[in-house]
Amino acid sequence: MKLAIDAMGGDHAPEAIVKGAVEAVHANPALEITLVGDEEKIRPHLNEESNISILHTTEVITSEDEPVRAVRRKKNASMVLMAKEVSEGRAEACISAGNTGALMSAGLFIVGRMEGVERPALSPTLPTQDGSGFLMLDVGANVDAKAEHLLQYAIIGSIYSENVRGVKTPRVGLLNVGTEEGKGSDLTKKAFQRMKEAPIHFIGNVEARDLLDGAADVVITDGFTGNIALKTIEGTALTMFSMMKKTFMSNMKTKIAAGLVKSDLKGLQKQLDYSEYGGAGLFGLAAPVIKAHGSSNARAVYSAIRQAEQMVEQNVTRTIAKTLKELRLKEEEQK
Amino acid sequence: MKLAIDAMGGDHAPEAIVKGAVEAVHANPALEITLVGDEEKIRPHLNEESNISILHTTEVITSEDEPVRAVRRKKNASMVLMAKEVSEGRAEACISAGNTGALMSAGLFIVGRMEGVERPALSPTLPTQDGSGFLMLDVGANVDAKAEHLLQYAIIGSIYSENVRGVKTPRVGLLNVGTEEGKGSDLTKKAFQRMKEAPIHFIGNVEARDLLDGAADVVITDGFTGNIALKTIEGTALTMFSMMKKTFMSNMKTKIAAGLVKSDLKGLQKQLDYSEYGGAGLFGLAAPVIKAHGSSNARAVYSAIRQAEQMVEQNVTRTIAKTLKELRLKEEEQK
Repeated sequence: MKLAIDAMGGDHAPEAIVKGAVEAVHANPALEITLVGDEEKIRPHLNEESNISILHTTEVITSEDEPVRAVRRKKNASMVLMAKEVSEGRAEACISAGNTGALMSAGLFIVGRMEGVERPALSPTLPTQDGSGFLMLDVGANVDAKAEHLLQYAIIGSIYSENVRGVKTPRVGLLNVGTEEGKGSDLTKKAFQRMKEAPIHFIGNVEARDLLDGAADVVITDGFTGNIALKTIEGTALTMFSMMKKTFMSNMKTKIAAGLVKSDLKGLQKQLDYSEYGGAGLFGLAAPVIKAHGSSNARAVYSAIRQAEQMVEQNVTRTIAKTLKELRLKEEEQK
Repeated sequence: MKLAIDAMGGDHAPEAIVKGAVEAVHANPALEITLVGDEEKIRPHLNEESNISILHTTEVITSEDEPVRAVRRKKNASMVLMAKEVSEGRAEACISAGNTGALMSAGLFIVGRMEGVERPALSPTLPTQDGSGFLMLDVGANVDAKAEHLLQYAIIGSIYSENVRGVKTPRVGLLNVGTEEGKGSDLTKKAFQRMKEAPIHFIGNVEARDLLDGAADVVITDGFTGNIALKTIEGTALTMFSMMKKTFMSNMKTKIAAGLVKSDLKGLQKQLDYSEYGGAGLFGLAAPVIKAHGSSNARAVYSAIRQAEQMVEQNVTRTIAKTLKELRLKEEEQK
């Protein structure tokens, strides 16, 4: 199996990226990785790994770059060349920890869409209290989604969860403002009806209040709402940690307490850190494209690589394409 | 000034409601309150307050009732009679801690809309780290909002914040998936353009991640997104408190620490409790309608009453109506 990785994307590139790649080829001798980026900066972190090769380029897309324009103009950027490795058949999947918007553009314009998918979705795995996590899609690739898109996300998310996350008969829920059928916006009402008929285990509406309690294994929403929910979780957690820190530093008694629970609270923080759950999939493309978190360390990069490997091994892209095609045929028959 | 209060709504009704009302008339001798509900249950919590009267009824709308149907069928419910006190001119504003959906229906169908407002908005004040709080609207009254509605919410929120919350030149932000102009859904792109021209201090897009940091004094969003953001904040905070509790109970060392910081952490919890910031306004109606939190204690009911008093004293409804009318005239001129 061959993967292409953007060695220059993310806060700790290229070191964390290269180290994650080295760890991955050690764990799986059948894996070959092409690291795309500045050879001079990559080489020092490599040993003699025979199954890692470097595709040299000095151009990079930064986090400040305007995504669509960057992908179109920076034709030799590491992220662009990485996507080309996939579209031109030299790699089966790709991974980047760089500019999210640019990766979505590169996925869409270079790797290309899966047949029958109009709009790909960005899908991270988010933390739950019990540590099992849930998949949410879309969190921002498609901000003006239609019911048809949400239906596809439900099928894609269910297949991914079952095959890659190992969840048996994943519970698929629709993010909504109430749990009863008939609640919500025009979009969610329509999507609800479509999802009821889909070949998934649809459990109905789920409320935002219950997300981190694991209300569903796969949570379906439009990219606008999903992005707001994701960033609200992040913002609330960060604010609470910051307020907790202030509380612990407020007097001598609390400072003593802080000393006693410091390591336990670090564990709590880690439990809520969703980069622990691997990268976000860009689903609905012709091949697996994984967005590793910008702050990824070598361990997180390794997780993202494992995720891509499993998607390839389990033939997730083909299963999704086949299921969506069957659904289209069935719908056409019913017309 | 005369207010009507639903004495039977909320988890601690009627006791907390009556006690909050008693506190309010003691604080303001010019205030007269009509408590609507079961006289037999209300009377025991009253002394000889001469400026509190009871409008007796035994029918109530419960939290399980389907909102629209309940308001239409339970014609003698305390909430319905309360709203009639306002629509028939016997009270200037009303307050309930009962079923939120039913109160929105009672507001819409009985109190009635303000001229020129197509869709009222539900608007709580949410906590920020620095304790100043921010107003968010809409959080669920209008789940399929148009740009025109968001523009009105921006004006309404700004006037309310200035007159009732005492914020000088409130910073009004549009909840969006990125801060740059041009980001977002069709709806937010259109709303952005309208808000730029409005007679408010528009500071552009704000991200969900920055809400609790006080990114804006007034945050504008459609009812679907606002509801998701609100419930995500609630859910994340509850999950974190529950995880923290587990962390503190995990071993002897953490238990000792818990004992040391218990009261400080209670303060933190209180800081994040938005019922501390008063009730949620149902804005865009012909008179002030306040939704007190379902779990309101006497103190929270008192706050909600103060809020209604200030809305009446400051003529907020008239100012909003006047500003919206001027805007309509200006827009018609420009056509």
